[in-house]
Amino acid sequence: MDTHLTRIKGGVGAPRGFRTAAVSCGIKDPSSRRLDLALVASEAPCSSAGTFTTNRVKAAPVKLTVTHMRRNRLQAIIANSGNANACTGLPGLNDAKAMAKGVAKPLGIKPQQVGVCSTGVIGLPMPMERIEPKLGKLVEKLSSKGGTDVAKAIMTSDTVHKEIAVSFDLGGTRVRLGGCVKGAGMICPSMATMLCFITTDANIPQETLEKATLEAVEESFNRITIDGDMSTNDTVLVLANGESGIPPVRRNGPRCRQFRHALRWLMLELAKAIVRDGERVTRFVTVRVAGARTYLDAKKVAEAVCKSALVKASWNGGDPNWGRVIHAIGYSRARIREELVDIRYNGAAACLGGLQAETPMERLREIVAEPEFTIDINLNQGDAEYYMFSSDLSPEYIDFNRSEYAYWKQARKDGLV
Amino acid sequence: MDTHLTRIKGGVGAPRGFRTAAVSCGIKDPSSRRLDLALVASEAPCSSAGTFTTNRVKAAPVKLTVTHMRRNRLQAIIANSGNANACTGLPGLNDAKAMAKGVAKPLGIKPQQVGVCSTGVIGLPMPMERIEPKLGKLVEKLSSKGGTDVAKAIMTSDTVHKEIAVSFDLGGTRVRLGGCVKGAGMICPSMATMLCFITTDANIPQETLEKATLEAVEESFNRITIDGDMSTNDTVLVLANGESGIPPVRRNGPRCRQFRHALRWLMLELAKAIVRDGERVTRFVTVRVAGARTYLDAKKVAEAVCKSALVKASWNGGDPNWGRVIHAIGYSRARIREELVDIRYNGAAACLGGLQAETPMERLREIVAEPEFTIDINLNQGDAEYYMFSSDLSPEYIDFNRSEYAYWKQARKDGLV
Repeated sequence: MDTHLTRIKGGVGAPRGFRTAAVSCGIKDPSSRRLDLALVASEAPCSSAGTFTTNRVKAAPVKLTVTHMRRNRLQAIIANSGNANACTGLPGLNDAKAMAKGVAKPLGIKPQQVGVCSTGVIGLPMPMERIEPKLGKLVEKLSSKGGTDVAKAIMTSDTVHKEIAVSFDLGGTRVRLGGCVKGAGMICPSMATMLCFITTDANIPQETLEKATLEAVEESFNRITIDGDMSTNDTVLVLANGESGIPPVRRNGPRCRQFRHALRWLMLELAKAIVRDGERVTRFVTVRVAGARTYLDAKKVAEAVCKSALVKASWNGGDPNWGRVIHAIGYSRARIREELVDIRYNGAAACLGGLQAETPMERLREIVAEPEFTIDINLNQGDAEYYMFSSDLSPEYIDFNRSEYAYWKQARKDGLV
Repeated sequence: MDTHLTRIKGGVGAPRGFRTAAVSCGIKDPSSRRLDLALVASEAPCSSAGTFTTNRVKAAPVKLTVTHMRRNRLQAIIANSGNANACTGLPGLNDAKAMAKGVAKPLGIKPQQVGVCSTGVIGLPMPMERIEPKLGKLVEKLSSKGGTDVAKAIMTSDTVHKEIAVSFDLGGTRVRLGGCVKGAGMICPSMATMLCFITTDANIPQETLEKATLEAVEESFNRITIDGDMSTNDTVLVLANGESGIPPVRRNGPRCRQFRHALRWLMLELAKAIVRDGERVTRFVTVRVAGARTYLDAKKVAEAVCKSALVKASWNGGDPNWGRVIHAIGYSRARIREELVDIRYNGAAACLGGLQAETPMERLREIVAEPEFTIDINLNQGDAEYYMFSSDLSPEYIDFNRSEYAYWKQARKDGLV
């Protein structure tokens, strides 16, 4: 925990002037009461920044939200889980619009001030007959209880809800920063498959917020991987409503640096929480690459190691298999020299100069048996570095992802397909 | 089966003037009698062509064989399974040299005329004290029995030995072409993790053989993927000894085209056999991409689909999940337009224009329940095409690859580490 930041209760609802609500519409499962529709609303229009999936197949809500943000100051976010509203064509886009419109009216704002996010199964029409009747109730339910309801409502295969909030001093005034995230499957850099909402009552001008958001995403969400897949719906939205009463944070000033630091810290915590809660994950592994000739070489090495199915399977088995690690380094397309490569597990040398080091195998096995450990790779060729967070790959992950047929059967029952 | 080709018995030992032998040295397991050291020898020096792993970490035998082939006409191949002789430094290189030398002398050829190949665990020293005493016996055992012994001795996690041989007419004379392959884990394009030896008694000049080999590898072994990993040892070696007595095949003539055709057919059969025998594989899937703007776009799409852990898990579950397929298409970095994408399973439309098609789900599930099926992806943007062969990813695959600790324990017992 950073000494300048004080942990406070809640998540997206923690900053002043933000209220939240969530209801159950039965999108995930008509017979359950699980929360699956959420709303975050600000009392005032916000500076807003976002990053979105780089997948060329983009879900309808992603397309809509990008359009909304181009010309408007967002004031609310509506999000659902259970259905991704992706590959749904024009009807899907109309459904996303209807969701925005349905809450904008009772909130007294323009539909274009609402960000829309969906997560769930791809290719099924949205069950709007279950969602639309609940939109009014969602607005009525808005409260200042901190936002845990939102963190819960966006969960899909997540096993725990993930949120965090902090307060910190910004030029003599306490400001608040809160966020929640959902992840679990399909996590990969260049926007992990996930939704992340962050709110703050700091007064951050639009452009400054955009820059800070891009920078923080690059150093957090773009550095995690679970299964190497990238979703159609990934979205990070950051809203700043200025309700703390502080004067606008000027670009490049000391207050700006403080805010950027806090934002980066928050996103990194949320990103790590996603990996720890990855589908059927038993290991959280930090891979640090040093001594690369260029930043890009370091990144290629980290990505190859973090994405290798064989490396990840060995972590699952508690096997300190540096042979598989160096073999992934070798095919990363980075410029490396085998005879210079060092590999360490929590500092203990497994491979020095491309050859087996003298650390007893038993010692290395103790390290890889732990739920969290760090692999340091030194290419000994330059000064460039990169880090990434990854997880193991378990038989249970594959088993868990074998079939989504149950969703289709439900959709058939609902007359949607 | 091609009408010009006649299937004959055996593999690498089928062409005239090639003899083979295999013995058990206990490299895989000292207590078992499994074959793990093999020799292919020609009566005459051969035109020889090879392709090797693109992994920057290359095993000692790969480095040695590349050097040997630069200036010499190969006349023999020695290969072992159980130990990859990779990441073994200068001692490893000396071990590979000792293997070549140990058979060259009794064969009456130069050590530089021997190709050396190893497959197995990375990072462990070669148990030369078990290999060297057997080299003389290996040469003594050489016979014209067809080469099945070699196909068996190079197996690691393969469940069946893989070989094939054909004869065909080349300008009025029957020539023979035979090959064997091992694969199983770590299979990925740009040289699948595998060893492949091919022999022929056709008279193919060096340069012509090199060109034909590159072309055939590109259209076969570079198009298969099981787990997306690439090994340090991948090698394809093709030897042509001319013992059929035909005059040299001239470049670009009709006989050259016939030979290239036969070589490509043989390699494609062997490549498919690797995928079918992939570790814990239950599905063999052909992915064909059409309508791409460029060849590279088509290739990117095929690779993204064939390597996606989520797509492969869905195949394992018998789930015709076109949502995951289009989502992989989307992140492939190919230029695609969602609203133009068609996806078919064995010709039955699952997705048309980026939206769900009307084929009943039950029909699609019947197709994906089969052990082999084809997915056709039409991007409807141009004329470029690509195809690839892939497999499902099973919980059992991960389970199988969790730990290689048993090998280390054995190495410890042997006093190697």
